[in-house]
Amino acid sequence: MNTLTVDLGDRSYPIYIGQGLLSDASLLQSHIVGNEVLVVSNVKVAPLYLGSVLISLKGKKVESVILPDGECYKNLEILNRIFDALLERHFGRKVTLIALGGGVIGDMTGFAAACYQRGVAFIQIPTTLLSQVDSSVGGKTGVNHPMGKNMIGAFHQPQCVIADTNTLNTLDDCQLSSGIAEVIKYGLINDKSFFSWIEHNIEKLLIRDHEALAYAIERSCRDKAAIVAEDERESGVRALLNLGHTFGHAIETGMGYGAWLHGEAVAVGMLMAADLSMRMGWISADDLHRIDNLLDRSGLPTRAPVDMTEQRFLSLMSVDKKVENGHLRLVLMRSLGGSIISSDFSHVLLAETVNAHHAISA
Amino acid sequence: MNTLTVDLGDRSYPIYIGQGLLSDASLLQSHIVGNEVLVVSNVKVAPLYLGSVLISLKGKKVESVILPDGECYKNLEILNRIFDALLERHFGRKVTLIALGGGVIGDMTGFAAACYQRGVAFIQIPTTLLSQVDSSVGGKTGVNHPMGKNMIGAFHQPQCVIADTNTLNTLDDCQLSSGIAEVIKYGLINDKSFFSWIEHNIEKLLIRDHEALAYAIERSCRDKAAIVAEDERESGVRALLNLGHTFGHAIETGMGYGAWLHGEAVAVGMLMAADLSMRMGWISADDLHRIDNLLDRSGLPTRAPVDMTEQRFLSLMSVDKKVENGHLRLVLMRSLGGSIISSDFSHVLLAETVNAHHAISA
Repeated sequence: MNTLTVDLGDRSYPIYIGQGLLSDASLLQSHIVGNEVLVVSNVKVAPLYLGSVLISLKGKKVESVILPDGECYKNLEILNRIFDALLERHFGRKVTLIALGGGVIGDMTGFAAACYQRGVAFIQIPTTLLSQVDSSVGGKTGVNHPMGKNMIGAFHQPQCVIADTNTLNTLDDCQLSSGIAEVIKYGLINDKSFFSWIEHNIEKLLIRDHEALAYAIERSCRDKAAIVAEDERESGVRALLNLGHTFGHAIETGMGYGAWLHGEAVAVGMLMAADLSMRMGWISADDLHRIDNLLDRSGLPTRAPVDMTEQRFLSLMSVDKKVENGHLRLVLMRSLGGSIISSDFSHVLLAETVNAHHAISA
Repeated sequence: MNTLTVDLGDRSYPIYIGQGLLSDASLLQSHIVGNEVLVVSNVKVAPLYLGSVLISLKGKKVESVILPDGECYKNLEILNRIFDALLERHFGRKVTLIALGGGVIGDMTGFAAACYQRGVAFIQIPTTLLSQVDSSVGGKTGVNHPMGKNMIGAFHQPQCVIADTNTLNTLDDCQLSSGIAEVIKYGLINDKSFFSWIEHNIEKLLIRDHEALAYAIERSCRDKAAIVAEDERESGVRALLNLGHTFGHAIETGMGYGAWLHGEAVAVGMLMAADLSMRMGWISADDLHRIDNLLDRSGLPTRAPVDMTEQRFLSLMSVDKKVENGHLRLVLMRSLGGSIISSDFSHVLLAETVNAHHAISA
């Protein structure tokens, strides 16, 4: 088992990565606050892993609530089912919520924990590669609004994150690829040698080589944790983590939540950010090709959906959280592995990027 | 204008109390973060005061959203209308929300501000006595759940509170009385000389003598601010502010939100807390009579509704946020003006108190 710490003062917490951690009762129980636990999972994950978690929680007052599976259910209405379960079972302020599932379950459970009685404890047990490397680190929680992704939420740090790599064995191929998109993102943000490592090890990741996966998860979490520790509330450098996300969120919102996997949308978004960076003269055509090629080898899409016209892209991007005083800010690449946050880009070139990606797909 | 500060480190904020403050543009504008403002009000308050506030906001990008009036609308569904308004108008992270109305508007606007894009700024302009002395101080925000009051929420401090005493001129008598219940509460918690002052000045408050109201508001806010500064997240002494609220919330939830005004339910709740304290031998029958008498002179109910049987009371009280590991904690009176938080009371006497208040009303 590998352990790393997200350093946030009195909100610091450990991330545990290893095989079979779901069955480690003492590890899990040592992070339960109080005596009451509500496990939140979904219809896909619960049949696979809820049993193990319940056994590990023996001796506590434990209940569970099973939500439908998918990004399209990440909304206030489904969130309310968690509150219903908490209140029906008379859970008090000392309850600990456990998120057992992917990013949607993690985001919703974390947000429910942030709001229930104005804040209770929670633990993340991410069961997808995407959530292990991304959404379980950093305390961002929330739900979508029909007009924008993650628009309603809170910063709320977990007691700990338990990433059991065994859970990746049951992951769909496209969900594995979606997670790899976020792994590649850390290379592109500020870790060029990690990007090269992924280029050399992508086949191992795709066949779910345990050692390669554990390495990729740990390095991704370390890269993310370092950025989050520097800027917990995203007033500065943390926005780098949104590389590919402004384009990607536009695709997710525009196509309807769930039509595209998050990592798939981010993959196209990163490529569009790279394309615009190349048009700005910041990275080379060869760099762009390396990124395109790695995403393609990872089983990820590299073109936006046909329906996403220039106008639709730009309109959806204008409601992004990164808009400041009407100015859109994007994460772009000054170099391969050297991303920056900038509103200092040409809107003509932005339109060209959007059109290029739309035209190719048409 | 009187000014006092709620001392919460980097979340400290001022409370301004005075006549005509709604029209003080420079006061209001000095607390606006950024250039975008959404004013949240309701159908009762907006026709009276929204115009003045909009004039004071001249030069900013300002929109407003008008919600229905009443505690029964303080829920996630109506909350979503604020998010709809923010997203439809493309408001970004630098928006400032303004709550113009009573406690319901303040709680919902504050919670929307806490959650929109994971946290934006907001200003409280309370227009009822209740919200001026209570809900606008201390950063508690949230909505109700059908199974419990204020069960979903956040701690989120405003930029400032502007209490314009002129707005009390248009308040219904029963709403004025509801506010006076919370004023009396501060006397009963830990300010016996304030309790005596209210006994001597209750007629002035009821005829809306401006000087008496301003004094009562300021002293109430000071009493509350001192407690909040000591314990922002309610891990200890802050729970004293819930005097009368565990009984009161049971009435509000049991009768359906809005059937009883909050202050009316708290009045009965304080009297029940006093009754139990007398049965425990902590306060005298004379003390109890003084409290009963003052509430009665204030135009407040002193008996629980007939429908609230012992069983119903105890069942509803068991889901209260003050329940810890299954033990109900109540705010009780060791003396008149000396309240304590305790789970060390006789449940037989509690049942007697509940029955006594129910029996009298039958």
